[in-house]
Amino acid sequence: MYISDCLEKIRQKKPLIHHITNWVTIYDCANITRAIGALPVMAHAKEEVEQMASIADALVLNIGTLTTDLIESMILASVSANKKGIPVILDAVGAGATDFRTQKTKEILKQVKISVLKGNSSEIGTIAGVEAETRGVEAISVKGNLTGIAKHLAIMEDITVVITGKEDIISNGTETYICKNGHNMLGKFVGTGCMSASLIGVFCAVEKDYAFASAAALSCFGIAGELAAENAKGPGTYKISFFDEIFNLNSTSIDKLKKIEKII
Amino acid sequence: MYISDCLEKIRQKKPLIHHITNWVTIYDCANITRAIGALPVMAHAKEEVEQMASIADALVLNIGTLTTDLIESMILASVSANKKGIPVILDAVGAGATDFRTQKTKEILKQVKISVLKGNSSEIGTIAGVEAETRGVEAISVKGNLTGIAKHLAIMEDITVVITGKEDIISNGTETYICKNGHNMLGKFVGTGCMSASLIGVFCAVEKDYAFASAAALSCFGIAGELAAENAKGPGTYKISFFDEIFNLNSTSIDKLKKIEKII
Amino acid sequence: MYISDCLEKIRQKKPLIHHITNWVTIYDCANITRAIGALPVMAHAKEEVEQMASIADALVLNIGTLTTDLIESMILASVSANKKGIPVILDAVGAGATDFRTQKTKEILKQVKISVLKGNSSEIGTIAGVEAETRGVEAISVKGNLTGIAKHLAIMEDITVVITGKEDIISNGTETYICKNGHNMLGKFVGTGCMSASLIGVFCAVEKDYAFASAAALSCFGIAGELAAENAKGPGTYKISFFDEIFNLNSTSIDKLKKIEKII
Repeated sequence: MYISDCLEKIRQKKPLIHHITNWVTIYDCANITRAIGALPVMAHAKEEVEQMASIADALVLNIGTLTTDLIESMILASVSANKKGIPVILDAVGAGATDFRTQKTKEILKQVKISVLKGNSSEIGTIAGVEAETRGVEAISVKGNLTGIAKHLAIMEDITVVITGKEDIISNGTETYICKNGHNMLGKFVGTGCMSASLIGVFCAVEKDYAFASAAALSCFGIAGELAAENAKGPGTYKISFFDEIFNLNSTSIDKLKKIEKII
Repeated sequence: MYISDCLEKIRQKKPLIHHITNWVTIYDCANITRAIGALPVMAHAKEEVEQMASIADALVLNIGTLTTDLIESMILASVSANKKGIPVILDAVGAGATDFRTQKTKEILKQVKISVLKGNSSEIGTIAGVEAETRGVEAISVKGNLTGIAKHLAIMEDITVVITGKEDIISNGTETYICKNGHNMLGKFVGTGCMSASLIGVFCAVEKDYAFASAAALSCFGIAGELAAENAKGPGTYKISFFDEIFNLNSTSIDKLKKIEKII
Repeated sequence: MYISDCLEKIRQKKPLIHHITNWVTIYDCANITRAIGALPVMAHAKEEVEQMASIADALVLNIGTLTTDLIESMILASVSANKKGIPVILDAVGAGATDFRTQKTKEILKQVKISVLKGNSSEIGTIAGVEAETRGVEAISVKGNLTGIAKHLAIMEDITVVITGKEDIISNGTETYICKNGHNMLGKFVGTGCMSASLIGVFCAVEKDYAFASAAALSCFGIAGELAAENAKGPGTYKISFFDEIFNLNSTSIDKLKKIEKII
């Protein structure tokens, strides 16, 4: 019921989601934002990011193809978003793969207020300071219990932490959710991680409980992923079908298929 | 008849369309150019834009993810295009959403000769100086009669003005066209505005009456959009089908489906 | 047999393919790398390209939307790749269309060790110093025998040269392969050239005979292209189907369909 309430609000309010993101999946990030019913805008020039963030309902940052310049724009936009009180989502793509990515992620976390920090297990593990290996943008290994890491980092940084994987873990330190929706085919094409961060931004724009909003976003993402598999012949047709399913999501399919657990 | 003559010329001449565009829809802009039968090239380095424009048949500028550097390249390329006498299309994406976009659009219009200025109602309204609200890249509101605004701006700037929307308005100040082709689903995925500017560039490359060429381009765009809807299950399958229909456009479907009105 | 051995190795080893590429087809380059079974990573900041290349299994450079900055990153990454001994593929997109592209291609070839230089006939012709015309990123004409040009340039530069076209020519100076797989529809959408360079990077990451690896990659590319044509209604559905076929490639279809000739 509640997840579909969020979806309803998104389609009515059409929140504007300002992205400063990477050049690989920038189109898909914009497109999933539109498909779910919100409005995307991509803008990264230092001269305009503050103003763009100030008219937006959420800000999504993604360091997939970061440069020093882009990080500066992210910080300017975040300061503006913080001032306005809109949620800021940070997708720490490739943290741990290079020192540059790890450092810049930490720099952002230190300088501005992030609402939701998202990554795969080794990206989040790296930021949490545990032993972890990221290969390119792929999680290879991480030492320790993922739920514990999410919870600990959430408390330390006073944020919501999202660890994506076969099961997604979301924690704000107090409440922790496990999302079990999803499909194997979501790992067979590029951009699912980035798109799920965009969806988190959309849901956080209409729901102030960011942990729940993130869980709702990832459930919708996973449910669309399950529905898309029906007629797919490979990752090409699957991805196209996935966009159709995101667009067609409704309370019936969400209520029937959702698999969220809340851990106290 | 005449629209399909343009299409025939495009497929025979294969005009080269130089784009300096945004990082979100850059692929789709290139791809629709190719799908209709022309050749796209994307090049933005200051060191080469003049030379690239000098071998092109049209130049398409799009400020969707503008930076100061990119605008400088656009101006350099436009000067070269002006010298050669090829059409320059400017898609004023997001004008009005930030001061930066509004100013840079006006700067381009002042410094070089633009052939076709394209935008949605609030983007063009902003440039025309009427009260308008752009939210991200979305038209929210504009005060005044759109046909009047297009006509007035066309006369003031001595250009062809295109306002896209449910009905597209094209005016060179003397002749005004209304294009009524299109489909609701064209608004459900990202990039249609940008792609229609690319198509305008392609048609202007083979037809010197830029108002008619723009109307022809938007008619073809809308007709393909109507045909694409037949078997689509959502914006994913619809968009794929749209590219098929752009590629398969022919005089029979154009003559049967076109809905252009000319206002004296 | 041997081609499918490479494919088997790719799927087992999942090599990491570091790309510094263009903003038009960057997604498709990443996606085909993933679809065939490898891992893509796109990173171009000077601060991280050396480290990223040092954890990669191949480096793919593509000058499709080059800037001076990007070329500097390419050189830094290549030095790192050379040190580690991983293959470096250079796709000379648009060489000959502008002096800037021609010069920068030559600069890269001079400063670092390239393993495979790839281009269409006029791009390679330009670099080889024969009379050639490139229009945007399209081969218009080239003077001389293509196999001879490939062989000669391979010897002069001590590299593997790949000339793509209706028939692909691959030569390391000693061994020359002609790949005859492919389909007319591969030329009807944007990005096939770039994607084939990514695939060459993937195959070279698991097979040290770069001429054979390139021939194997292009055969797989062409075979998937042939299979994709079966149910396509235009370049939209064709491209989607192409990704499915790349993903589903197996030894049976490869052995049945491959058309490689080795010239002594």
